[in-house]
Amino acid sequence: MRPPHLMTLADLSPWQIKHIVNHAHMLKTRAKPWMGPQRSSAAVDGSTTNSVKANLPAESLHAKTIALLFSKRSTRTRLAAETSVALLGGRALFLGRDDIQMGVNESVRDTARIVSGMCQGIVARVGDHSEIEEIAKWADVPVVNALSSLWHPTQILAGLLTLHDHAAVFQSLSKPTPTPTPSPTSTHAIAQPETTPALPALPPLTIAYVGDCANVLHDMLVAYPRLGHRMRVAAPLQYRPPAEVMRRVVQLGCNRGIEWFENPLEAVYGAHVVVTDTWVSMGQEAEKEERIRAFEGYQVTEKLCAHAHPDWMFMHCLPRKSDEVNDEVFYGPRSLVFQEADNRKWTTMALFDLLFGQWSLGPEDP
Amino acid sequence: MRPPHLMTLADLSPWQIKHIVNHAHMLKTRAKPWMGPQRSSAAVDGSTTNSVKANLPAESLHAKTIALLFSKRSTRTRLAAETSVALLGGRALFLGRDDIQMGVNESVRDTARIVSGMCQGIVARVGDHSEIEEIAKWADVPVVNALSSLWHPTQILAGLLTLHDHAAVFQSLSKPTPTPTPSPTSTHAIAQPETTPALPALPPLTIAYVGDCANVLHDMLVAYPRLGHRMRVAAPLQYRPPAEVMRRVVQLGCNRGIEWFENPLEAVYGAHVVVTDTWVSMGQEAEKEERIRAFEGYQVTEKLCAHAHPDWMFMHCLPRKSDEVNDEVFYGPRSLVFQEADNRKWTTMALFDLLFGQWSLGPEDP
Amino acid sequence: MRPPHLMTLADLSPWQIKHIVNHAHMLKTRAKPWMGPQRSSAAVDGSTTNSVKANLPAESLHAKTIALLFSKRSTRTRLAAETSVALLGGRALFLGRDDIQMGVNESVRDTARIVSGMCQGIVARVGDHSEIEEIAKWADVPVVNALSSLWHPTQILAGLLTLHDHAAVFQSLSKPTPTPTPSPTSTHAIAQPETTPALPALPPLTIAYVGDCANVLHDMLVAYPRLGHRMRVAAPLQYRPPAEVMRRVVQLGCNRGIEWFENPLEAVYGAHVVVTDTWVSMGQEAEKEERIRAFEGYQVTEKLCAHAHPDWMFMHCLPRKSDEVNDEVFYGPRSLVFQEADNRKWTTMALFDLLFGQWSLGPEDP
Repeated sequence: MRPPHLMTLADLSPWQIKHIVNHAHMLKTRAKPWMGPQRSSAAVDGSTTNSVKANLPAESLHAKTIALLFSKRSTRTRLAAETSVALLGGRALFLGRDDIQMGVNESVRDTARIVSGMCQGIVARVGDHSEIEEIAKWADVPVVNALSSLWHPTQILAGLLTLHDHAAVFQSLSKPTPTPTPSPTSTHAIAQPETTPALPALPPLTIAYVGDCANVLHDMLVAYPRLGHRMRVAAPLQYRPPAEVMRRVVQLGCNRGIEWFENPLEAVYGAHVVVTDTWVSMGQEAEKEERIRAFEGYQVTEKLCAHAHPDWMFMHCLPRKSDEVNDEVFYGPRSLVFQEADNRKWTTMALFDLLFGQWSLGPEDP
Repeated sequence: MRPPHLMTLADLSPWQIKHIVNHAHMLKTRAKPWMGPQRSSAAVDGSTTNSVKANLPAESLHAKTIALLFSKRSTRTRLAAETSVALLGGRALFLGRDDIQMGVNESVRDTARIVSGMCQGIVARVGDHSEIEEIAKWADVPVVNALSSLWHPTQILAGLLTLHDHAAVFQSLSKPTPTPTPSPTSTHAIAQPETTPALPALPPLTIAYVGDCANVLHDMLVAYPRLGHRMRVAAPLQYRPPAEVMRRVVQLGCNRGIEWFENPLEAVYGAHVVVTDTWVSMGQEAEKEERIRAFEGYQVTEKLCAHAHPDWMFMHCLPRKSDEVNDEVFYGPRSLVFQEADNRKWTTMALFDLLFGQWSLGPEDP
Repeated sequence: MRPPHLMTLADLSPWQIKHIVNHAHMLKTRAKPWMGPQRSSAAVDGSTTNSVKANLPAESLHAKTIALLFSKRSTRTRLAAETSVALLGGRALFLGRDDIQMGVNESVRDTARIVSGMCQGIVARVGDHSEIEEIAKWADVPVVNALSSLWHPTQILAGLLTLHDHAAVFQSLSKPTPTPTPSPTSTHAIAQPETTPALPALPPLTIAYVGDCANVLHDMLVAYPRLGHRMRVAAPLQYRPPAEVMRRVVQLGCNRGIEWFENPLEAVYGAHVVVTDTWVSMGQEAEKEERIRAFEGYQVTEKLCAHAHPDWMFMHCLPRKSDEVNDEVFYGPRSLVFQEADNRKWTTMALFDLLFGQWSLGPEDP
């Protein structure tokens, strides 16, 4: 049995994407109350612990180890991975560029085989996307792309859950098309206690992306249109997605849901959600001046968004520079950035539970 | 509900300080026997494990992650934090200066918010004390100061437990004032099995500190006098505590219990406990020669302590250089240095259980 | 009670070596099925988790922390240690050269005492062998040598389990001498369910080692001959083992089971197993050219092994360079290299369970 991998959301069906987000919602609802302070923690009979354990999701990664092969500095992705493996009862093993011999003293092929012989899952944050493809090619356990030059699927899962969490904000827009909650099948049954409320459905949204076209946008392009949302992207011509990304967009028919602009004012017109990202990613410091110049006028401000929908909200994958969004928006009431960051944890937990725990993201179309 | 933090013992009442030390004593008494070898570890029915679990304190950090944000190299503080989180059922996540983007690629404010959205506690070892104040300002979970330029509260908790552990040595000095054991209240009840002996009380002690006035001494100055002990400090005039520390000392009325000297011989006169610390801390290597000269005659030796109380004991927070204490004392029968180091674990465990697990160090004065 | 340590297999009796390998076989048989995907991981009642836990070996390291003091980059040794501690319910704490102050700002003696006051076991990967002897001298908990300049005992345990796992390949050679399975005694009883099949016995094998004489070979020399196998070693005269290793070999009478050659063709003659290792270890990069020249003709190829036993198998401790073995052999049907790497985990788990959990590798000769 070949293990399933997650390289980009383009590989998943719309049902599977919703399946992960639904599962994340269930896990968050169930586990979050237990993350707060406990009344009494030192009971001799262990009763507090037992009641916590009884209410937490079962630990699908009990006694298992998940390797985090990160070649780049990371805060959110690493925290989400480490904390969600802990919640699933497993052990996350962080291995940075200087920790192991992959690519330095040993081939990627050999290292991938060795790691997957001793660990039960691999999460890799790489440079060029070909590196993670190579790891997945040789690994005997599921591999998750935690950021590559081309894709960043886990970020978009967190964005989606955040939008659903705030569905009430958008409910007035129109009568919502009910999100078809994946119905439990015998193989992929997820026991939901009566008390877990269903994930609120979203109406069709218009999502504006203003800024540099990089991995975060790429995964939005192959996911949002297939979930019923429209995208309006503003980016300078020289910073548009590479051909290999656009091929996947077209293959999936997503291009019918995307409009392209050079003027950010046009892109945000009527948008329910405005998204941006840093203009200068790690490794692009040399191009900084050139990039700052190219994105003049792209900073997300209240003024820029004057023509967005009156209920517009703001998202950003972080870390944030003040170049691309000013403090008023970033720390203001429109901002969902910290909720989105928190949701990295719950969506990562759902993904790991399904992929590393069960080796299945469900059927493409049940 | 704002989370409680621990920046310095100056923020705690004497009752709260004793509460942590009492709790540490209970946890140590209960858990230590299970740290040794097990008779048989591979029973199919898991009976050994179950009996261990039944006797260990309940795991108040089960499924939780505590972030260790350390900008400095550390042995004791890190080991104490990592091992006690493990004992409490949680996961310690060490993040060094090169691991995350705080201060490099992201503001302290944003990072503190992100970390506290995914983790259930923050332990920070920083440079300037203002850094930890900034983290605590923005964090949504409790923050513990694990060493800053000004304070080192966890070290003094370990020192206190060590003195209580060796109360018998000092019992002959005088009829001890019974330490008022915090009586269990309904809110802060700590279940203690009948078999946990009470923490032995200490008579009023005279504690001599000989050497550089740094974070370790600062927290002694705001804690020991309020617990009924006297301090005698010898330090060159140019290495006395900064004004902001002395303000807290005076505010708390601790100055009435502290005498200052330039001659180490006078400071150790009649002392029951002699304490020192390195003369050249991390980052002060450039001033090494100057410092060595300034502290001439300050080395703790049997000869220097000839005028101390006949039953004098020695403490040091480690790591130790031979400048400030010779081998005869350091490895001799007066030395409590390794017991004090071991107690870093139990006092840290108590602090984390109360602060991260229960969000409460108890009432100021029950 | 002084803790037991493992510095080299030369310190163990043949019975103790077999005891560890037998225990590893039992743990692997029991735990491996649970490392795969779980049918359903999110049951509300925790039933999956409970059934996993019931079938896994009891967690002898529950609530315990094992310190990994590694001064060298490592993949297999670290993964094996981290994953097996997790399986035993404990926490592995990796401390690299830059993490702690040992040898930099604090003596090895003090650090060893401090670490063993807070952790329940030490695994050290050092440079010169004297470093690990110094750690073991001062530690109050068991210490395992995870690679030193002289010895690499855990590698040979993995090799042994791999040979036993593939005993069927060698069964046709001769009627096997049944490996006397250590019979359970009351003190060292290991409960084996009826369903754990006994470790297959090995006939006496001829093991050829072709290449640089380093730590891996050294531990083979003191182990294999005492277990009934013959060794044939080919190495240039200038790369033979140092006198202190040969003294142990002779002391144990192992020299009677070892033949030395300069011509690799002679060494592999009739061999059932051909083993090699890198010619240029970490730290020897400066001697690279000289070493490559000295080992000309030593590369393990199908052609070199034409005179080995028809059923010959290949082993290598990894990481591998193509200098010492070509792709045809390394990735071919003779190769046991990845199985051997996987077995690093199970033999390490067995060793840790016995040494850190029970403080005993059993009697020398029951």
